[in-house]
Amino acid sequence: MTTQELIAQIHSKKSFLAVGLDVDLNKIPKHLLETEDPIFEFNKAIIDATHDLAVAYKPNIAFFEAYGLKGWQSLQKTIDYINGNHPDIFTIADAKRGDIGNTSAMYAKAFFDDLKFDSITVAPYMGKDSVEPFLAFENKHTIMLALTSNEGAFDFQTLKVDGKELYKQILETSKTWNNSENLMYVVGATKAEYFTEIRKIIPDSFILVPGVGAQGGSLSEVCKYGMNANVGLLINSSRAIIYASNGLDFAEKARAEALLMQQEMQAILEAIN
Amino acid sequence: MTTQELIAQIHSKKSFLAVGLDVDLNKIPKHLLETEDPIFEFNKAIIDATHDLAVAYKPNIAFFEAYGLKGWQSLQKTIDYINGNHPDIFTIADAKRGDIGNTSAMYAKAFFDDLKFDSITVAPYMGKDSVEPFLAFENKHTIMLALTSNEGAFDFQTLKVDGKELYKQILETSKTWNNSENLMYVVGATKAEYFTEIRKIIPDSFILVPGVGAQGGSLSEVCKYGMNANVGLLINSSRAIIYASNGLDFAEKARAEALLMQQEMQAILEAIN
Repeated sequence: MTTQELIAQIHSKKSFLAVGLDVDLNKIPKHLLETEDPIFEFNKAIIDATHDLAVAYKPNIAFFEAYGLKGWQSLQKTIDYINGNHPDIFTIADAKRGDIGNTSAMYAKAFFDDLKFDSITVAPYMGKDSVEPFLAFENKHTIMLALTSNEGAFDFQTLKVDGKELYKQILETSKTWNNSENLMYVVGATKAEYFTEIRKIIPDSFILVPGVGAQGGSLSEVCKYGMNANVGLLINSSRAIIYASNGLDFAEKARAEALLMQQEMQAILEAIN
Repeated sequence: MTTQELIAQIHSKKSFLAVGLDVDLNKIPKHLLETEDPIFEFNKAIIDATHDLAVAYKPNIAFFEAYGLKGWQSLQKTIDYINGNHPDIFTIADAKRGDIGNTSAMYAKAFFDDLKFDSITVAPYMGKDSVEPFLAFENKHTIMLALTSNEGAFDFQTLKVDGKELYKQILETSKTWNNSENLMYVVGATKAEYFTEIRKIIPDSFILVPGVGAQGGSLSEVCKYGMNANVGLLINSSRAIIYASNGLDFAEKARAEALLMQQEMQAILEAIN
């Protein structure tokens, strides 16, 4: 998917919501456990209930790998279901991969070529040659960790290198890489005030923002500091939407939560125009 | 596996060799492609040919994920084969994972509980709460990236934070984490002279060393600067061993390469004693 197609979708749906699919068998409605593939059935119901409100789905790969072969099968079915029924929707493999070049190339093959995700999250620690193999794919997007939403973000990401926080140095350096136009970045919603500085470095890039909802970040604050002329934000919500209920009404309640977020987003978009 | 068991194995085999299983279907002998599971058949042959010379096997998870469901199946069979036939051998899931706490916990479940690996490689960028879920597992080992063997290592890992290289800061900080005795570290062989400084920070930890062989690092240099009283090194070789030949004699040639490395290691161990 091209960035322009993503932007068009945002304007037509009046939404920049990404729904995180972090499916924990201990948290989903009990009646689904009797189906042959509870993870896929859960995802399918969530997708059916929210696809007109969300512009992206973000399966969290750990939650599939935790169930081994069956989990990988559920992942394959989930991405095939999205691509088959909602080809306009942007898909994010939340995998946080990154390794030496020939290994990153294998991860890129796995998620871009085989599973046909539009994007993947990657970690920056191993530098340029660990990320460029992902960037080489046309119309695929590589979403690199910059400033994450967890407490541990302050262990290393905000350390000062030459008087500048490490994550800012990473943002700057990454702009020099081959095909850097295919980069997006992860910045946690819990650090909304940081967006002003971040936008000075990457004014045009899309930013994937976790941490709204269960982790406590504020949508309006993030938009205030982080939005650009093309919106430039994908706000992820996982648990607050998918676990809104664990009863028979889980999909309906998930839709209600997604709708609240979409409406808030619509209001923000309309206030700007 | 306990660290003591790993050390005992090193002394009994007179080897601290880890064999990396990075199986690329384009590089393995053609005759294996006709079998039902070429990746597993290749690994099985390599393991059969080298298990008395190596103390560890390191499947590179990317190379399995690149083949989707079938790849995951090959991974399961490979780890089951090692654990079933050579329970004394240390197994490393080279996965370079790392995410927010509840997600890292799912990766730990996947690799420690389900696949029953002894250890996993992780990335440090997201800090303490992204690594501690792995450290919580008793007699499992978390091998954190410190200074990697690729060119991109110099993009961020060696940046100075408060006058000290980032990777050194990461080593120091990680020692304060809960269950940090379960940490090992990755330091590339291509940077042998760095080991002296690194050993000042982590004198007792095991270090997994990629980059000997195909990537050009020297075994004797690494041992000179990096060995401790318990050896404390696992030297990984992947391509130089497993792709020593791509003919019918591939396993035999892999053994010959592994034997050369084991003999060099034995000579080093004997020179010390």
